[in-house]
Amino acid sequence: MFVGIDVGGANTKIATSDGFVDSRYAPLWRTKERLYDVLAEANQQFGTELEAVGAVMTGELSDCFETKREGVLYIKNALSTTFKAPHFFDRNCMFKESSEVDKDPLSFASTNWLASATFVAVQNKDAIFVDIGSTTTDVIPIVGGELKARRTDLERLKSGELIYSGILRTNIAALLKKVKLGVLREECGISSELFAITADAYLVLGHLTEDEYSCESPNRYAFAGREHAEKSRVSALRRLSRVVCSDLDELGEDGAIRIAEQVKSAQIKELRASLNSMKEKYGLDLVIAAGIGDFIVHEAADSLGMQVMPLASIYGKRIAATFPAYAVARLLAHFS
Amino acid sequence: MFVGIDVGGANTKIATSDGFVDSRYAPLWRTKERLYDVLAEANQQFGTELEAVGAVMTGELSDCFETKREGVLYIKNALSTTFKAPHFFDRNCMFKESSEVDKDPLSFASTNWLASATFVAVQNKDAIFVDIGSTTTDVIPIVGGELKARRTDLERLKSGELIYSGILRTNIAALLKKVKLGVLREECGISSELFAITADAYLVLGHLTEDEYSCESPNRYAFAGREHAEKSRVSALRRLSRVVCSDLDELGEDGAIRIAEQVKSAQIKELRASLNSMKEKYGLDLVIAAGIGDFIVHEAADSLGMQVMPLASIYGKRIAATFPAYAVARLLAHFS
Repeated sequence: MFVGIDVGGANTKIATSDGFVDSRYAPLWRTKERLYDVLAEANQQFGTELEAVGAVMTGELSDCFETKREGVLYIKNALSTTFKAPHFFDRNCMFKESSEVDKDPLSFASTNWLASATFVAVQNKDAIFVDIGSTTTDVIPIVGGELKARRTDLERLKSGELIYSGILRTNIAALLKKVKLGVLREECGISSELFAITADAYLVLGHLTEDEYSCESPNRYAFAGREHAEKSRVSALRRLSRVVCSDLDELGEDGAIRIAEQVKSAQIKELRASLNSMKEKYGLDLVIAAGIGDFIVHEAADSLGMQVMPLASIYGKRIAATFPAYAVARLLAHFS
Repeated sequence: MFVGIDVGGANTKIATSDGFVDSRYAPLWRTKERLYDVLAEANQQFGTELEAVGAVMTGELSDCFETKREGVLYIKNALSTTFKAPHFFDRNCMFKESSEVDKDPLSFASTNWLASATFVAVQNKDAIFVDIGSTTTDVIPIVGGELKARRTDLERLKSGELIYSGILRTNIAALLKKVKLGVLREECGISSELFAITADAYLVLGHLTEDEYSCESPNRYAFAGREHAEKSRVSALRRLSRVVCSDLDELGEDGAIRIAEQVKSAQIKELRASLNSMKEKYGLDLVIAAGIGDFIVHEAADSLGMQVMPLASIYGKRIAATFPAYAVARLLAHFS
């Protein structure tokens, strides 16, 4: 059995080439040592069936590390300590052994989207690969089977190939600068606190269930002893109301829903701009969608007359939501 | 001795009419019960010299409370339990006793700027009062001695009388949507995480000392056992680098400083827009500045040809930084 592991800043995702997937909450910024436990549990779970482990990462950006270099090496050490000779996917889309990571750590930073796009490109020579996750969105042009994206996060932020917002964890204050409220659609400034996240908006709009709201809410601590209420619709509406320094009594459900709708519009608009520039530059018309934000991809692509192929329809929702780990496992099986 | 208390979401500020001021970190969202301790300490400190206590608040917006009503009543209870017959400043700029708070809690929400502006208006009949704090900025037009500002935070966010950003705690991702980098001034998207705050920008630009960086940094937890390093210049530069998913090795000090400069420009621009609209609407030319962001006020006002009178030059820096609590103490002394 081939296992792919994607070490993110908040979650470590694990998948096998035959389709088992798992995501474990292991926030590196809180306790990076927890990564060792999560990996040890996986090692024990797979036992002797495990043939080889491949790894990608983005967790090196976590602010528990002074530099990405330090982050890559920490993550590499955790993997190398736990598994026998793990394979690390690099920026040239090749698997390397751990001694190669020591020589050039930065070649192994931010590789999870590369594994996904490499795997997708095997069957789709001309398409834009989009993966909207909990926190970020990758938008990767594939032309003639070649990945046209830049290789560092910094360069990808410039080109629109990385949009640092997602469906669950994104602070609404980072997405919206103003909102329009009331029948007059008056412009209103917003609070810069972490009062509400995109998961609140999409829960309220019906795009997510309480179970799919799988991250912590901004005011989780306020629900000690009544955790069931944390992700209720009314709690999400209350969080959205605080974004304009209000509360649900004052703003009303309609007002809170208006904010949620503007969150959705902002995310569609961001993605649409990226898709549009790549469509024009490369003449691409097909969008391959992984992740958990198909509803955003569809609206953005439809408005540009682009076709969408959701990977969930091929691999199922769970694999599509954890695609880099699965892609690594499949690529490793292929190369072995 | 008359004591003014300003209960915020993060800090409780205490001042006396004769000029003693103190600010205590009591984040309501983390442990609201801590407010009782802070108030009890103050009560003990002043002892028998205490003649009367006046209170204002903004902490009712903290997301440990479901509604502002609940927040106001919690804060009122903490004050009433600790002090004998405290006086609560209301939206009509009058002191009321606690039974009045029970009858109409919302009349006592978000009152700290009202106390400051009322006190300032005694001597300045025509001016714009600006208080840039750690987290928010109040911009209050005073015309013929009358406060022209709306009375709720929601309405003030619409009118530009409340700008929800400050000099210390504001997430840079809420201020900037893009930054320009490099000699080509290329546009670059930014991360929506809480990677860096305005205190990082102003420390790096030399507007704040390490001591004045008086809030927690975003990655405080990463400095256990070496707390002295948390607020160093290099730590702030590293945090700024993460805003574009980079690190200091890759971005370089110049790149991080460019981000800090754009944070400053964004805050000046926001304030300038508010000042300009009030200058035009009311024909005001004088800005009275409290808070800790005089350097922002000066640049915004200068660009509009407005004159600035910093309250620090009259009352000293410490009182100007804790102005609502001081104003409450002085108003209470005046009315008693």
